Amino acid sequence: MADPHVEDVADEEASRSVVSRALAIIGTFHGGRERQSLSDLSRNSGVPIATAYRIVHRLTEWGALERDEAGKYRIGLRLWEVASLAPRSMGLQRIARPYMQDLYETTHYNVQLAVREGTELVSVERFQNPNYRRGRPRVGGRYALHVTAIGLVLLAHAPEDVREEVLSAPLKRYTPYTYADPDQLRRVLAEVRSHGYAISDRQMDLDHVGVAAPVFGPDGSVIAALSCVLRHDDVDEKNMIHLVRVTANGISRALRKAAEAGRAPV
Amino acid sequence: MADPHVEDVADEEASRSVVSRALAIIGTFHGGRERQSLSDLSRNSGVPIATAYRIVHRLTEWGALERDEAGKYRIGLRLWEVASLAPRSMGLQRIARPYMQDLYETTHYNVQLAVREGTELVSVERFQNPNYRRGRPRVGGRYALHVTAIGLVLLAHAPEDVREEVLSAPLKRYTPYTYADPDQLRRVLAEVRSHGYAISDRQMDLDHVGVAAPVFGPDGSVIAALSCVLRHDDVDEKNMIHLVRVTANGISRALRKAAEAGRAPV
Repeated sequence: MADPHVEDVADEEASRSVVSRALAIIGTFHGGRERQSLSDLSRNSGVPIATAYRIVHRLTEWGALERDEAGKYRIGLRLWEVASLAPRSMGLQRIARPYMQDLYETTHYNVQLAVREGTELVSVERFQNPNYRRGRPRVGGRYALHVTAIGLVLLAHAPEDVREEVLSAPLKRYTPYTYADPDQLRRVLAEVRSHGYAISDRQMDLDHVGVAAPVFGPDGSVIAALSCVLRHDDVDEKNMIHLVRVTANGISRALRKAAEAGRAPV
Repeated sequence: MADPHVEDVADEEASRSVVSRALAIIGTFHGGRERQSLSDLSRNSGVPIATAYRIVHRLTEWGALERDEAGKYRIGLRLWEVASLAPRSMGLQRIARPYMQDLYETTHYNVQLAVREGTELVSVERFQNPNYRRGRPRVGGRYALHVTAIGLVLLAHAPEDVREEVLSAPLKRYTPYTYADPDQLRRVLAEVRSHGYAISDRQMDLDHVGVAAPVFGPDGSVIAALSCVLRHDDVDEKNMIHLVRVTANGISRALRKAAEAGRAPV
């Protein structure tokens, strides 16, 4: 009988390497690169073409990838179906959406919900006023934390090491108002924590003001942030702050109730 | 030098088998089974525990899976980020959503968008009136085609072989009004194609009426369907039919324009 441990080591390396390659192929897709040929997939993932072919074939059979009419590969519906079960995006979104919809319908402000992932934010839901569409954020897209009100809230409540990582990296300046100086940003983040909300006044572009507040998980930690954005000449700041805080608190309460009812949403 | 073809065959089998096992593990998640322990994952996927451990470890490192506080695995945010690029769900949703939002805001009817996947439908977007929430559909969830108005539209425009597959399988009866007889259903589907819309009058449950119309892709094929659902005692059928058809046509036109502008959304 073969020694199972010897087999295990070889099997372990093979499994890891093949799974890593499959993930590398899937990870080559991003906003702006949504369709790729087999040779694109091979080049962008660094997986040799013959191996890429076999993996892509299997991913396509399962439905993680699909081929379009032009023969290019795109992310498949089946992968999206499974991914729609992700608690941190869709679980949170299901609870938050009615509250966001009420806020949007009442005010027609742009309303957004985002979570932090590492040193960036990921947008998980938004209601956008078609009259002042800004092109972004894209649901599922990643953005810098130091620029927008929603990012400032997430950064203010991030673990110390994440905050220091962001503060020690270059802070891209989008407008003259962006907090691009780490000491200034550190002071702002302390204020965000003590006030319970953040404001971004033309720090992303020169037309918009955003207000954001934290969303708390059942354990009391900040798991997301909610923001309203509108044109800076339309702003009634006090009203926005109140609305965003009340709505974020409503979502936090609904998350706690869901957890108490045994349906932990996140 | 080793014969590359011999290596290839071994490598091919190993790659396929490992990728298949990783996909089997991811595929064990579904609505109602959103958190699993390692032994759940092994049992539900049929992948031996030692192999499952290695694959799950790699999937977790990448972010396709995440561990929650209780140590259970759930679908990770990173998989959702990649999956949010799927053109048939999120690409379509991005174009359709402003139209759906207008319809919802004007009427406060429940509004849904779905695509066909095999012999079922997958719900990709919905606006739901909180005053008559029905629990379903869940975005990302799969449902039978023969029951709802939206399903009838998708079934009516499915390829012949798909339609016959549905018609030859048992047709579950949800209410006395469900089309559970294949000959009756075949006649209804012909009417749906000729009228350009479908009605489901208490066929899903005894409280609701739905009206749906097809959404056409840039090549003129039916790629999705749009529906409105409301309580059967509130129904103004003619108004619903007009609104759903006008909105579905607006979405079809926007899809065509996006394709003409070189931004093929689906």
